[in-house]
Amino acid sequence: MITSELKDFTYTFGEIDKIDAIGFLSRVKQSPEQFKQGKVVLVTASTPLKASRGEGKTTTTIALIDALRRRGVDAAAVLRQPSMGITAAGSKGGASGGGKSTLSHPEIADWGLTGEMARIADAQNLLVAFCEKAVDDGILSDILIPRVSETPSRSLRSVRVDGGKLAERFVLTPASEMMQIVTLSRSVEEIAERVGNMIAGTAPETGAPVQVKDFVDVERIIRVIGNAVQPAYMESGEGSPVYIHCGPFGNVSLGIPGLTAVDMACALHDVVVVEAGYGADAGGQKWLDIASREFGAQWPAAAVVVTRATTWRDDPQLQWRYPFAVNRLEELGIASFPMINLWEGEDGEVPQLRQTAAELGFRNPIAGNLWRDGGEGLVAQLDEFIDVVNNADGSIRPDSNLSRDFMDTVTWICEKAYGVPSDRVIEKDGFAQILSEEKQRAEQVGIDFDSLAVLPVKSPATMTDNDAAPESERTVTLKKVEVHAGAGLVHVNVTTSLTTPMPKIV
Amino acid sequence: MITSELKDFTYTFGEIDKIDAIGFLSRVKQSPEQFKQGKVVLVTASTPLKASRGEGKTTTTIALIDALRRRGVDAAAVLRQPSMGITAAGSKGGASGGGKSTLSHPEIADWGLTGEMARIADAQNLLVAFCEKAVDDGILSDILIPRVSETPSRSLRSVRVDGGKLAERFVLTPASEMMQIVTLSRSVEEIAERVGNMIAGTAPETGAPVQVKDFVDVERIIRVIGNAVQPAYMESGEGSPVYIHCGPFGNVSLGIPGLTAVDMACALHDVVVVEAGYGADAGGQKWLDIASREFGAQWPAAAVVVTRATTWRDDPQLQWRYPFAVNRLEELGIASFPMINLWEGEDGEVPQLRQTAAELGFRNPIAGNLWRDGGEGLVAQLDEFIDVVNNADGSIRPDSNLSRDFMDTVTWICEKAYGVPSDRVIEKDGFAQILSEEKQRAEQVGIDFDSLAVLPVKSPATMTDNDAAPESERTVTLKKVEVHAGAGLVHVNVTTSLTTPMPKIV
Repeated sequence: MITSELKDFTYTFGEIDKIDAIGFLSRVKQSPEQFKQGKVVLVTASTPLKASRGEGKTTTTIALIDALRRRGVDAAAVLRQPSMGITAAGSKGGASGGGKSTLSHPEIADWGLTGEMARIADAQNLLVAFCEKAVDDGILSDILIPRVSETPSRSLRSVRVDGGKLAERFVLTPASEMMQIVTLSRSVEEIAERVGNMIAGTAPETGAPVQVKDFVDVERIIRVIGNAVQPAYMESGEGSPVYIHCGPFGNVSLGIPGLTAVDMACALHDVVVVEAGYGADAGGQKWLDIASREFGAQWPAAAVVVTRATTWRDDPQLQWRYPFAVNRLEELGIASFPMINLWEGEDGEVPQLRQTAAELGFRNPIAGNLWRDGGEGLVAQLDEFIDVVNNADGSIRPDSNLSRDFMDTVTWICEKAYGVPSDRVIEKDGFAQILSEEKQRAEQVGIDFDSLAVLPVKSPATMTDNDAAPESERTVTLKKVEVHAGAGLVHVNVTTSLTTPMPKIV
Repeated sequence: MITSELKDFTYTFGEIDKIDAIGFLSRVKQSPEQFKQGKVVLVTASTPLKASRGEGKTTTTIALIDALRRRGVDAAAVLRQPSMGITAAGSKGGASGGGKSTLSHPEIADWGLTGEMARIADAQNLLVAFCEKAVDDGILSDILIPRVSETPSRSLRSVRVDGGKLAERFVLTPASEMMQIVTLSRSVEEIAERVGNMIAGTAPETGAPVQVKDFVDVERIIRVIGNAVQPAYMESGEGSPVYIHCGPFGNVSLGIPGLTAVDMACALHDVVVVEAGYGADAGGQKWLDIASREFGAQWPAAAVVVTRATTWRDDPQLQWRYPFAVNRLEELGIASFPMINLWEGEDGEVPQLRQTAAELGFRNPIAGNLWRDGGEGLVAQLDEFIDVVNNADGSIRPDSNLSRDFMDTVTWICEKAYGVPSDRVIEKDGFAQILSEEKQRAEQVGIDFDSLAVLPVKSPATMTDNDAAPESERTVTLKKVEVHAGAGLVHVNVTTSLTTPMPKIV
């Protein structure tokens, strides 16, 4: 059942409800004392061995809120919208949990039927169409906004249009700047302003960057975005509240749910479990360093770091990554609970896993076969977790990025999030040139380059150029930079591993 | 208010309702005596001078049902889903009427927010992604299904992907085979079968065509289509019922609303006004010769042929087209009412227009400034129209195409629909070769080529190679042929005018 405070802001959308979160948050602003100030718990994971192999973050998130509610805690979850294309391709199932820890309408979440992806794709593609007209009209000489496809498609990585004259790019919808804007914005006015600020392309004679607002009626884009700004409401099998909104693909984009959905959930519930992935190095890092530090989202009161038993155990050369993730969060003052997502036949391994955790100085792991047992299997294990969350200071507001210098921030991320000190951060040939061009581009449209939040782009399965190398030899190579002036982000492609915002069907 | 019989099949979808028409039609089939057998009235138009210039079919349709209901007739309208991309581009406003003759939610219809276009686009693009994987897997050597874009984009007409190795095509969503399949199918099972029958590409060694069902789990595509099979319910400003479903772009595709929506409306109302465009030569022809003759849709009890006063009057060389359209429908036994859609300042022209109509042997025109006056301006003019519809035999079931030979059907269409006899139907160089290849392709997948319904593809603004030439010199050139094995159609590109399933933004 949707909470009574949301009634006026909820409308039926086929088999599910959608919520006018922006409208609701205006009411919260008017009389905040009538609402809760819930604490955020971050659910993230170990860096996965393969992108296509989930550790079970969504399953954990759903089991965790079910277990918390059985313990009398008013908990809710905020999940990211699954990518329909990836689901439909069948490479990793859906992204709506599994077994006893699943959603009331997994098929609607997984198959894109809340409409959000489609609206965001249409909006960005419409923008490209306007850019194309601007090329015809002599306003632009090239188009810097990529087209969007909601289905993965290898061949769209490299496209020449218009009889071969013009190069274009396609990215998957979740990786688009439009998705970033909807994820990070708190109002429709903010979305409009950010869309207007996007860099559309280059002016023919001056070579200066041209922004969307210079030639597009942004209202048309806003109309197409429509209700993509409104989170969907679903429930766990046990009826626990789950809000779904925006943002998968933490390796090439944000990997976090929409901030309005999280703000809304915090006004309604005491504990709000926020999923961010793929791992602590991707969506986890982005929740902390982008959402919290730069966009005013809540700093987590605690974290749950999910791993499969096998991920933690089976590759000795990569075993360092799981403790690294847990320890990094602890070092930030965030109590971090290891969560072992057991598969069939692994129950007997728990004592050994607990011993390993103790040797590593971890908190006692929470463990369970969540697919089989759901939240019920966790209820008795949550004493310390509930205690920590109850006693956490929910009002911590972290500094924005420690330095306002782009390169300082990049090396800081490499050290803190990937364990590679600045003297082993390598610039690929041409990197400095691209960096200087992008800096100039930002400045030409009046944006302070160093004020942009830094968003690393990398493979979901790697943290460094070679995670299997000994710690003292690990490096991170910086490859290129791309300003997302509308979203207020600067992408930096890190590590030598191949990555793409347009995967193929596998 | 939605009619009570639909209550169990209707669900709220944001600000509008969507209807499970397929479910409702199953109930009708069980006890047909409990439902109406409404008569179809076709609203179509003169061939427009420019594609971007609507004559006012939707405005007329809405005014007409409002006027009929004021006269005590239980009338409803079935409209085509507007193309969001074209609306957003701003070239011709929306497609939801105007002024006093508009919909309760024009913005939702115009901006694609019933979700239908997006779902159909996603479904066909997903199919292309599966084809791409099939190329990688050695199942296909090329891909014959075009990608889909919901925004018009000149440059997507010619695309090379995969580093230039592979040519691909994009078509606008309304022009896709997926849209044709959803428009023409009466059940989800039929959609699945038709999607499975689509020709995906060519086998590498044999060169034989490969169908979707040979390598795709069609259920995945059906899931993505989701509720695109369900018409949206809206109302006119006066509360008259309007069902909206599928099918714009009568020049390059069908240009008619979904057949389930029309069947449903006929079970609920006495008069069902069906919009088909651009003109009588495009969507009008397709309603008669494809929907009615081949797919069992109702033969119209009457027709209303809309023109602006200026379209009829201002170009002497093209003046023949309007009477041609009216007379052609009359010759088919369909009582055809001229409808003059007056613009501001044109009221004084009515007597002259009536005299011209009389000289041409037309029925007395219905005329009105529908934008300004809505249906109210038509109420007093509908005596003959109501009489004709009341007395029409609603059970006429026309022959399927008179001949089952493709070339006979094509020349028959050229003669009947465009006024060009078979000896002036010209085959462009290479046409016979393409025809023979497409025939072979169909036969290789077990489809009788001559059993496919013929769908002409042309410019919306031309009926012949040169409409301004004297009647005895007019020709039609046949350019190419393309089998849509899933939809059960064979496209034939006619006339020398340029046409494209991927317009540019204007």
